[in-house]
Amino acid sequence: MGENIGAVARAMKNFGLRDLRIVSPRDGWPNQKADSVAVEAVSILRKAEIYEDLGSAISDLEYIYATTATKRYMNKDYVSSNNLYEDLPQNSKIGFLFGRESSGLTNEEIVMSNKILTIETGEEFSSLNLSHAVSIICYELFGHRGRSGKIENIQTLATKGEVDYLLKSLIEELDKKGFFKVQDKKPEMVKNITNIFSRIDKLSKTEVQTLTGIVKDLSRES
Amino acid sequence: MGENIGAVARAMKNFGLRDLRIVSPRDGWPNQKADSVAVEAVSILRKAEIYEDLGSAISDLEYIYATTATKRYMNKDYVSSNNLYEDLPQNSKIGFLFGRESSGLTNEEIVMSNKILTIETGEEFSSLNLSHAVSIICYELFGHRGRSGKIENIQTLATKGEVDYLLKSLIEELDKKGFFKVQDKKPEMVKNITNIFSRIDKLSKTEVQTLTGIVKDLSRES
Repeated sequence: MGENIGAVARAMKNFGLRDLRIVSPRDGWPNQKADSVAVEAVSILRKAEIYEDLGSAISDLEYIYATTATKRYMNKDYVSSNNLYEDLPQNSKIGFLFGRESSGLTNEEIVMSNKILTIETGEEFSSLNLSHAVSIICYELFGHRGRSGKIENIQTLATKGEVDYLLKSLIEELDKKGFFKVQDKKPEMVKNITNIFSRIDKLSKTEVQTLTGIVKDLSRES
Repeated sequence: MGENIGAVARAMKNFGLRDLRIVSPRDGWPNQKADSVAVEAVSILRKAEIYEDLGSAISDLEYIYATTATKRYMNKDYVSSNNLYEDLPQNSKIGFLFGRESSGLTNEEIVMSNKILTIETGEEFSSLNLSHAVSIICYELFGHRGRSGKIENIQTLATKGEVDYLLKSLIEELDKKGFFKVQDKKPEMVKNITNIFSRIDKLSKTEVQTLTGIVKDLSRES
C-alpha cells in the first residue's frame, strides 16, 4: 500500500535512515499516495530502489534480519527488538526485512535471513501496522547511536549474493547426484538447506569460497 | 484526523494499553476512518472518552507526561523515551499527552504536565507522525515488562558429537577427492571448516542428518 510505504519513509527520515528498497510494490511505482504521506521524506522515496524479488534486493547485503510479529517455528535464532543493538554485527551492510501489511513475510522469505527480529507485543493483538513496526526498529537503531562498547570484527563478510551463489551450486550438484529423491519434497528441503547456511553467523568471503570449493571438489567424479 | 486516531488505537492494543481519551476531535466522533484503520482495536475506540478540553480530560490523573518532538524552552523537566520506564512514578494513574498531527501540543497544554517526554530523532526531520510517536511510547511501556532474552527454540539440538561425526565424514570425503592439495595446510583448513560448521547457531539433529546426507550424496561416484 502506497500509504504504508510513505509512512515507512517518514519514519526512516525521522531516525536518520536513508536506504529504502522495495520489492514488487503492489500498486506500482512511483506512487502518489506514498508521496503525500511521506511529507518531508519524499527524498527517500525518490531514491528508493525497486526490485522484482527479494533475492536480488538483498544480494549485496551481508547480514539480514527478518521482522516478524508472531513467532515462527523455524530453526533460526530470534532477537527481540529490545536487544537489537547489542546483537548488530559490526561494520556490516545490514538489511531489515519487513513483510506485507496483510500477511508479513513468508517462510520462504524468512529463511533468507540470518536471524528473526521480533517486536514483543501483547498476546491479544500482535499484528503491528507496517509503518509502526518500522518506526520502532528505526527508533531502536537510532536511540543507541553513540553508545559504544563492541569489539570490532575485522573479517570481510560475504554478501547475500555470494551465499546465494554457493547455495545454487550446491542444489545443482545435489540434483545431479539424485539427492532429491521425492521431487514434491524438494522445495521444503531446499528451504531447510538455505536456512542452515543463512544462519551461519558472520560468514566471511573466504569461508564462502571454502564452502564453494568443498561443493565443487566433493561432487567431482574421480 | 480519524486515520491517526484509529492508528493510535491499533498501536495501543498491540502493546496492551486500553484507555484512550480524545480531546475535541476535529472531524467529529465516532469516525468511520478511525474505525477502518483501527482493525481489531475498534473496541478501544468504542470505549474512548471524548472531552471538550484537556483540563477535564486529565482531571482524575495523577501524573502527566507531555510528548513533544522538539525541545521547548520551558522550565520543566525532560525525560527521553529511552529512560521513560525508570522515570515512571509508582502506583500512579499516569497520562501521556500527544498533540495534533500538524502542530503538536501548545505551550498552554504542555504546562499542564508534570514532565516533558521527548523522542530523540535525527535533526533533519524531527516531526513524527502521531501514531508513530504513540507506537514508540506504547512499545517502551510494554517492552520493559518482564524483558527477557531469547525465545526458546523447540527443535532438538544436535549434540557436539553428531556435528563432529559430520565433520569427520566431510574431511574424509574431501581427502579422497584431493581437496587438500598441500598437506601442510590441511590442519589449518580443517580448523577453518570446523569453525564454519560449529558456528551455525543451534543446529538441530535433523539438520545435521541433512548435512551428512549431502556429504554422502555429493561425494558418491555415479
